[in-house]
Amino acid sequence: MSVLDTVRYDEKGLVPAIIQDCRTGEVLMLAYMNRESLQKTLSLGKTCFWSRSRQEFWIKGESSGHVQVVKEILFDCDMDALLFKVDQKVAACHTGYRSCFYRKLEGEALTVIGRKVFEEGDVSNTSL
Amino acid sequence: MSVLDTVRYDEKGLVPAIIQDCRTGEVLMLAYMNRESLQKTLSLGKTCFWSRSRQEFWIKGESSGHVQVVKEILFDCDMDALLFKVDQKVAACHTGYRSCFYRKLEGEALTVIGRKVFEEGDVSNTSL
Repeated sequence: MSVLDTVRYDEKGLVPAIIQDCRTGEVLMLAYMNRESLQKTLSLGKTCFWSRSRQEFWIKGESSGHVQVVKEILFDCDMDALLFKVDQKVAACHTGYRSCFYRKLEGEALTVIGRKVFEEGDVSNTSL
Repeated sequence: MSVLDTVRYDEKGLVPAIIQDCRTGEVLMLAYMNRESLQKTLSLGKTCFWSRSRQEFWIKGESSGHVQVVKEILFDCDMDALLFKVDQKVAACHTGYRSCFYRKLEGEALTVIGRKVFEEGDVSNTSL
């Protein structure tokens, strides 16, 4: 039996995947995989997700070039969450921040603490 | 409007919460919160989750003492994932490993790479 079959997918066939920068340890994003996108991730060596809103496969960085090269995959005790340590090209977030977690709760408000590495619509970064 | 109301909970009213060690950056676990457990987490200063299997609130470490003192809360770009940086007492995983992500995919198999900090059933740790 493949390890892909030991993963406990939810009732929609999905498992959450935490993406972490392999060098800095920064948590970059959370997205979802199904069995096929996990298999694709393993064969490509780059993260491939299942978009819940668009209901389609999504190779991270396919259009922007901001791919995530997989360095390590960890499984949790319950086999229902995955952790990918990746080499993130440019930025994980489409908004231009290095990490999607760029806002921090301070009191009652959210404060931007993230590092912006490109401006949205800046095509000069799309081929990186 | 409270920031609790700006979170995009899923159709079950849940949002995934990534728990990260505030000192080492190690990702410790992933669990789920609903609005009430998030509110409880904010007021207690310790993580409180919603157990999907038991359908009940669950203050992490309430019986074991392995609480997670919240140091920072980050929100992602879509407001549908949370990241908690915590001071983890003893261990996050009930199996005794510091992190729930204690196994790594190597070839076709999972290899234990985690650090075990207590043995299951070892009551000497429960009051820590």
